[in-house]
Amino acid sequence: MIPGPFLLYLGNKTDPADVKTSRGLAEFRREDCVGEYRDDGCPLTLGLPRMGMAEAAAAGARTLVLGIASAGGRLGPELVAAASAALEAGMNIAAGMHERLRNEPRLVALAAEKGLRLFDVRDPPPDLAVGKGYPRPGRRLLTVGTDCSIGKMYTTIALARALRARGVAADFRATGQTGILIAGKGIAVDAVVADFISGAIERLAPARDDDGWDLIEGQGSLFHPSFAGVSLGLLHGAQPEALVLCDEPGRPHMRGIPGRPVPGLAETLERNLEAARSTSPDVRAVGVCLNTSKLERREALRLCARTEDELGLPCTDPIAFGVEAIIDNLLCAEPSAHATIASH
Amino acid sequence: MIPGPFLLYLGNKTDPADVKTSRGLAEFRREDCVGEYRDDGCPLTLGLPRMGMAEAAAAGARTLVLGIASAGGRLGPELVAAASAALEAGMNIAAGMHERLRNEPRLVALAAEKGLRLFDVRDPPPDLAVGKGYPRPGRRLLTVGTDCSIGKMYTTIALARALRARGVAADFRATGQTGILIAGKGIAVDAVVADFISGAIERLAPARDDDGWDLIEGQGSLFHPSFAGVSLGLLHGAQPEALVLCDEPGRPHMRGIPGRPVPGLAETLERNLEAARSTSPDVRAVGVCLNTSKLERREALRLCARTEDELGLPCTDPIAFGVEAIIDNLLCAEPSAHATIASH
Repeated sequence: MIPGPFLLYLGNKTDPADVKTSRGLAEFRREDCVGEYRDDGCPLTLGLPRMGMAEAAAAGARTLVLGIASAGGRLGPELVAAASAALEAGMNIAAGMHERLRNEPRLVALAAEKGLRLFDVRDPPPDLAVGKGYPRPGRRLLTVGTDCSIGKMYTTIALARALRARGVAADFRATGQTGILIAGKGIAVDAVVADFISGAIERLAPARDDDGWDLIEGQGSLFHPSFAGVSLGLLHGAQPEALVLCDEPGRPHMRGIPGRPVPGLAETLERNLEAARSTSPDVRAVGVCLNTSKLERREALRLCARTEDELGLPCTDPIAFGVEAIIDNLLCAEPSAHATIASH
Repeated sequence: MIPGPFLLYLGNKTDPADVKTSRGLAEFRREDCVGEYRDDGCPLTLGLPRMGMAEAAAAGARTLVLGIASAGGRLGPELVAAASAALEAGMNIAAGMHERLRNEPRLVALAAEKGLRLFDVRDPPPDLAVGKGYPRPGRRLLTVGTDCSIGKMYTTIALARALRARGVAADFRATGQTGILIAGKGIAVDAVVADFISGAIERLAPARDDDGWDLIEGQGSLFHPSFAGVSLGLLHGAQPEALVLCDEPGRPHMRGIPGRPVPGLAETLERNLEAARSTSPDVRAVGVCLNTSKLERREALRLCARTEDELGLPCTDPIAFGVEAIIDNLLCAEPSAHATIASH
């Protein structure tokens, strides 16, 4: 386990999507966060006290979390410098980049000298097997999206909490660095060797017979030219009984790809259902979650209502309006007796 | 470069698909192969002289190729024992498994002692970037399949050779261990970190402006529950102008997954075209290649004719009947002025 409390790194980032890991911890483990570290001129904040390294250590922070989600997962000189400063100040370091802390000799030497630790949360288990797609017992829901960084993790956690609040056994299964830091476990599916994508998810959400749910965090999008392979392997491995579609209205283009439009909701849902049927023939869509944080409340409500009409599914913003309507839909039917959206 | 000539390993395998790497070298680089190594009772042969390790070394073999394609890519005790014996006899070792030769201390020590080398051909380049899907110049063809190990590499090499025979610049772009051993270069796309699948292919077949073709070897199948993620990322990264569909008639189930039927040709083609359009809107199918090696010649011809009628595309067995009809179709139209099969 990574020792808390945490100091959350924002650095010189300007795009909220770049700091999604720091933000996720601030949102879901706020009681474990003592402050945020940001450069002069960084316009972002998590609403935590701004602290320097020594100040944070003095306030009790035990680990600096480099909660940055950059495409390609490069560490880069700024993050290495920040990690060095944090080690000097007496804090451990946690990061979920493809480039590993343990491959930075300067950090390794400094950690050894100070008796501190480096946590690479994206390391996959060493002994994964290829997926097989054989039907396995258990109730599984997967969040899918029109794009990356569009609310799949928030939605998945909200659904897990709402199910547990109704007394239904439910576990959040984390597949990305942020989710893993929040849950304390999981598999970073985009970091496994490509042959083992679906196998990693079969491991993460194995056969289950307690009538409880595995709520599996989706990644990427079947339409994202960088990451669609991860999304498809995840979909096959999850063998989901239920899908929830996530979107952020008004996004100008797919993340990291200026000029590429975000696909439509109906097309995204249809393509995901079609692919999911390979390992879960009776899969059904149970709801739509929109990140409406940039909209007025009334506009957000109107959009949810219109989306419900268009797709024939409950639609909500999980943060603003909760997920009860989706939970109602999820629990209203027995497995393998569902109509799919294709039949509407 | 891996020193030839080669001794090809078959060991105790009984399924021809398990030795596809050894078989590919025997087929396409036969002049570089001195013999085959197989256990008593192994029913397979490549038509090369059967040799023991010392005998092969005495006959001039400089490298034992562990040409086995096992799901999951485990080395296992038999292969490690065979590699040890080959090193003792004075041969280098080449293998394309996920489990690396260099991670077997016994082999590393023995190679060092003997002054020999271990070649892990599945090692990806260290500095891959994520794919972007931006349109890039160049003419690219990708082979896709209903299943794994179904003839995509054979087809791709046959197409490259046929294009060159017509005086058209054409390069085979290898994406698997067998292809890499044949071509002497390439990227094992199933061995890259999952986030970099499409990026690896953008690297393998970069922008090109000499009017020549990149013939890209496909992997897996969009319908294979183990490997579909690799297939989709490869498809997006390839940004293909043309697809050739590969199938083996009569296969009882998808490779490695008893009970899972092989998808139909039309469905496979439609799903691949649909997904390919994400990065190559004008993609078209140009032909179908069947592995008819288990059929009578007349039956094979009838099947090709029937498939042509059904799909409206030239259909052939590339080994038995050549690929000229597909090349004719490929070269008959200018890029981005094609009808797709969806419009038939």
